[in-house]
Amino acid sequence: MPHITFPEGLPGITGPLAFRPDTAEPLRRLAEVLLRGPNTLSRADREIIATYTSSQNDCHFCQTSHGAAAAHHLGGPVELATNFALISAIKRDFEAAPISPKLKALLNIAGHVQQGGKRVTAEDIARAREQGATDTEIHDTVLIAAAFCMYNRYVDGLATWAPQEEEAYIPMGASMAHEGYVTTRVQNSDPQ
Amino acid sequence: MPHITFPEGLPGITGPLAFRPDTAEPLRRLAEVLLRGPNTLSRADREIIATYTSSQNDCHFCQTSHGAAAAHHLGGPVELATNFALISAIKRDFEAAPISPKLKALLNIAGHVQQGGKRVTAEDIARAREQGATDTEIHDTVLIAAAFCMYNRYVDGLATWAPQEEEAYIPMGASMAHEGYVTTRVQNSDPQ
Repeated sequence: MPHITFPEGLPGITGPLAFRPDTAEPLRRLAEVLLRGPNTLSRADREIIATYTSSQNDCHFCQTSHGAAAAHHLGGPVELATNFALISAIKRDFEAAPISPKLKALLNIAGHVQQGGKRVTAEDIARAREQGATDTEIHDTVLIAAAFCMYNRYVDGLATWAPQEEEAYIPMGASMAHEGYVTTRVQNSDPQ
Repeated sequence: MPHITFPEGLPGITGPLAFRPDTAEPLRRLAEVLLRGPNTLSRADREIIATYTSSQNDCHFCQTSHGAAAAHHLGGPVELATNFALISAIKRDFEAAPISPKLKALLNIAGHVQQGGKRVTAEDIARAREQGATDTEIHDTVLIAAAFCMYNRYVDGLATWAPQEEEAYIPMGASMAHEGYVTTRVQNSDPQ
C-alpha cells in the first residue's frame, strides 16, 4: 500500500505526479529533455542508461517501463521480443551484451553514478572518450543516471503501486517512447 | 579537476548548469518549487532536509551551500553563527539536535530515502504522522531527499570544483535563500 493516498489506478510515478502538479512539471520536463530532446545519443541508448540505473536501484516500475520504452525505440513491433531480450541481457551483464563499446563505457559511468557521485573515476571517463564519447554525452550520461537515482527513490520511497507483469508495460513504453513525458495522453489536446 | 570542461570559476552545480542550459532549466525549477515554493513546511526546514541528505551523500558543495541557505532562512546576520552551529549539529546527529520532533521525523524519512527508496518503512511514515506531518509534507520530504540524491551525484559525478572554506558559502547561501534558484547571480551579468 502506498505511504500516502494517490488517485486510484495510476501506476508507479504517475500517482505522485498527479498528486503534486507543481513538482510534476519540472520532473516531466527533465525526463523529456534528457530522454527525448535533441542529442547525439540515440533515444534508445538514453532509455537504456535510465533502465540500467533503475535496475541497479531495484526499481521495478522504472526499469520495466523505461526498458519497454527502449525496446520500442530500438525497432517496430516485429522485433519487440528480441529487443526486450536485449534489455534483459544488458541489465544482467552489460559488458557481455551485444551493444557498442561506447554504450558499455557509458553504462559503466552510469553504474558508478548509481553507487555515488565520487565513484566515477578519471579512468571511467577516459574509457568513454576512447570510445568517442563527447563532453555533452558524458554530461548527459551522468545526469540521466543521477536523475534516475531521484525518480527511483521517488517511486519506491512512497511505496507506489505498479503492475508486476512485463506485458502491462508494453503500451506504457510505447507511449513514453512516442508521445513522451510532457504531453501525455491525459494532458494532450491533440485533435487527432 | 572536473571530468569535463566547464566555464571557469563556477562552483559546484553552477558549472554543469551553465554548460547545458536545456537541462538546467527544469533542474532549477525543481529546486525552486521544492525549496522556495508555497508550502506548509518552512523554507528553513526544507533547506535542512536538503542539507542533511547532501551530508549523508558526502557532497561538500551541496551540504555547505544549502546549509548556508538554511542558516539565512533561520534568521538575520546577527544569528548567523548560531544558525550555522545548529546546521552542524543536525548533520552530526539530528535526533539529538534542538529541533522539533516533526522535523526529526521528516529527517528520519529523508535519511532512509538517501539509502534507497525501499528503506522507507510504514513506521517511518507513522512517526511523521504522529508529529502532525501531512501527506503533502511527507511527499515533499521524500522528493527533496530524492532530488538531492540526484543533485549530489550530478555535482560529484562530474568532479566539479567547489571552495572548501565555509565562508565562501555565506553570500551564496544568502543568494539561494533570498533570490532563489531560477534567477541567480551566477547567470547574471550584473556589472557590480
